[in-house]
Amino acid sequence: MKSGLNFLIAAKRCEIAELQQLSLTSALVNVTGRLIHGLQRERGLSNLFLASQGEQFAGPRCEQVAECEKLDAELRACFDTLDTEPARMGNGARLFSRIAYVLQGLDALPGLRERIHARGWSPRRTTDAYVRLIAGLLGVVFEAADSATDPEVSRQLVAMFNFMQAKEFAGQERATGAGLFAAGRAHFAEQQRLLHLIESQERCLQVFNEFAGAQATALDADGRAAPNLAELERLRRILCTAPDGGTLDAQLSQTWFDCCSRRMDRMKAVEDGLAGELVQVCQHKVAAATADLSRYEALDAAATRETDALSFFQEAPPTPVATTVGAGMPGLPTPAQGYGLHLERSILELVQEQARRLQAMGDELETVRASLNERKVIERPKGLLMAHRHLSEEEAHKTMRQMAMNQNRRLIEVAEGVLAMAEVLPARRP
Amino acid sequence: MKSGLNFLIAAKRCEIAELQQLSLTSALVNVTGRLIHGLQRERGLSNLFLASQGEQFAGPRCEQVAECEKLDAELRACFDTLDTEPARMGNGARLFSRIAYVLQGLDALPGLRERIHARGWSPRRTTDAYVRLIAGLLGVVFEAADSATDPEVSRQLVAMFNFMQAKEFAGQERATGAGLFAAGRAHFAEQQRLLHLIESQERCLQVFNEFAGAQATALDADGRAAPNLAELERLRRILCTAPDGGTLDAQLSQTWFDCCSRRMDRMKAVEDGLAGELVQVCQHKVAAATADLSRYEALDAAATRETDALSFFQEAPPTPVATTVGAGMPGLPTPAQGYGLHLERSILELVQEQARRLQAMGDELETVRASLNERKVIERPKGLLMAHRHLSEEEAHKTMRQMAMNQNRRLIEVAEGVLAMAEVLPARRP
Repeated sequence: MKSGLNFLIAAKRCEIAELQQLSLTSALVNVTGRLIHGLQRERGLSNLFLASQGEQFAGPRCEQVAECEKLDAELRACFDTLDTEPARMGNGARLFSRIAYVLQGLDALPGLRERIHARGWSPRRTTDAYVRLIAGLLGVVFEAADSATDPEVSRQLVAMFNFMQAKEFAGQERATGAGLFAAGRAHFAEQQRLLHLIESQERCLQVFNEFAGAQATALDADGRAAPNLAELERLRRILCTAPDGGTLDAQLSQTWFDCCSRRMDRMKAVEDGLAGELVQVCQHKVAAATADLSRYEALDAAATRETDALSFFQEAPPTPVATTVGAGMPGLPTPAQGYGLHLERSILELVQEQARRLQAMGDELETVRASLNERKVIERPKGLLMAHRHLSEEEAHKTMRQMAMNQNRRLIEVAEGVLAMAEVLPARRP
Repeated sequence: MKSGLNFLIAAKRCEIAELQQLSLTSALVNVTGRLIHGLQRERGLSNLFLASQGEQFAGPRCEQVAECEKLDAELRACFDTLDTEPARMGNGARLFSRIAYVLQGLDALPGLRERIHARGWSPRRTTDAYVRLIAGLLGVVFEAADSATDPEVSRQLVAMFNFMQAKEFAGQERATGAGLFAAGRAHFAEQQRLLHLIESQERCLQVFNEFAGAQATALDADGRAAPNLAELERLRRILCTAPDGGTLDAQLSQTWFDCCSRRMDRMKAVEDGLAGELVQVCQHKVAAATADLSRYEALDAAATRETDALSFFQEAPPTPVATTVGAGMPGLPTPAQGYGLHLERSILELVQEQARRLQAMGDELETVRASLNERKVIERPKGLLMAHRHLSEEEAHKTMRQMAMNQNRRLIEVAEGVLAMAEVLPARRP
């Protein structure tokens, strides 16, 4: 028969295993981030190559493709190290499913590159293809963030996911702006797209600031205060204020691309800093849990089962818990006071301490995850609006934002309202 | 190198493993429910034994103790079958921690029984001791419900947890009422407690009805429509309307106990029905997932990687997803149309189908879990009020309900408000 102490130890071992799993997941997120960075650059160079009718950027593009092929191999190797034995990974089904999708995309990449080399696809279509692949890769990061069972690690992963998402919007901004400059002519829809991308970055960075540690936030603030940002804002102004159909200086295409690239490289440095912090947090937590485990393993279960067995019932909860009357989840007893120093009571004490800690962690985890879910709540009604009112994504988002302003409510509240309305919306027109 | 197909299969295997784990968890919940039922009866008989100064119910109590000892052994055996290898159980740390706590309580049970036999403890203190142990057992059920990764199973477990919780409130009502009748005298605080317990049952049954399948709900409705219920309500009226200090017919003690016991036995039957349904749902789902797995394993990965690799990029999403622009989680492509019947595209199709299904399941799971979390949100501020204003749990609950009525808001909204206020509340008086 397993004793309470056995299960106390089993619980601690589970915690350690989960934390070790998180270390692996963090490594995966890190390699994924590097491939994303490489593909973002490849996307930009491919755009410049296509915009120049293949006369420029052929060399840099080839070099970047070679670089990405290396990163691709590295990520596949990292996927291979994952333990795909069932039930070894929490959240395994969803993570593996995302990886399966990404691998389909990576397998398709050589074909895409051939099309670009042959200039068979437009810059826009090319951009969309890379965007889709990168979205798939970010999906892997999202699942990693959603699977973390430790609130502090989850917090870091949510920060990181949002930062990577912001960087991807910055990359799409680079591609869109480069296309506009290269075309030499302003285009209203593309300008709107640009504004939307800038705003999306800001929103993601806001979430990032909310969840990231002070160190990473400081690093990011440094990067954003750089002189480069003034140049970026100047070029953004030129791009966004030109009248529809007005002339743009095609020579600025390269300037814009370099300016955006410097910014993205800086963002990558912040991302690497986050990844480093993440590894440290995991290591620190594994060490602490391992120390607890040694303490538990040194205890003698047999000695504790005989004497004063009534302590379970005797300690009076000094602070409130819903153990007696009242609806609600079965509460856990609060810290017992006046336990004395009887060794024989220490297991009960340890059990209660651990249970309370796990419950507090669970509560905090929910708060962190809520921020991931909040985005889902905003995304779903956006999709509804797009389907039912034939809006583009930008238009749908703008509509919801306008509703929020008009009704003086938060975007999330409007989103919930739209979802609640979903059942009475007319069926989608064919 | 593992292919997309490998990970598609790995994801499906994880799903199957999680469902099999849920079957084990369901079995655990079932045995736990049986021990809870036994302990509820033991609590009631112990109360009657104590109230009669040890002159009555000694025999039935002894028989019930023997019955509970059997169930205790059965539950311990069930705990022993759990795979405590780290990372074999999702949510392992929390579940094992709850089990460790329960085992401490079960170890303490013989000591409690001795005290009762020697009539060393009051009925109230005795009741509280059983309440604490049963709350610990319900905690195991709570973790089981919180750990389910399949929304349908989670829904059933949430229904079951709420039903078991309702039944426990019914058990506490039985004990409280039996004590009042046996004492032969009405007591205001105990009458309030009774009313609170009745109301708590109703609340739990409401959640149960929301989440349970039609079959179980019907079964429950049958049980509640029974003639027994009229008798129960008549006795409740006698108990609750007697003036403070007024006489109660001590002879009704047995009548009350039997009437409440019949109700609880009926509730146990509903609970068993739920457990049966749960096993069926799990089996059905494992079978479906296994059939999918066979389909996947029959596919030939190599044949699919060469031809028309661009399909990943080519299918145009006909419905909206946040893959291109816009903040939010990286979306998954929506069903591709006009795929044709090319075998070589079917893996991509399968990957997308699976990813969409898992995402939809995740969304639904959140909704179900929210109901568990909503209770936590209501419990925490209740605790705050109790600590800061020195209220009993009933008083705290009543205060919050009164606030909700005064402000015309939902209880959950008031709860959130109290939590938000927590930081500015004065420190707890010593």
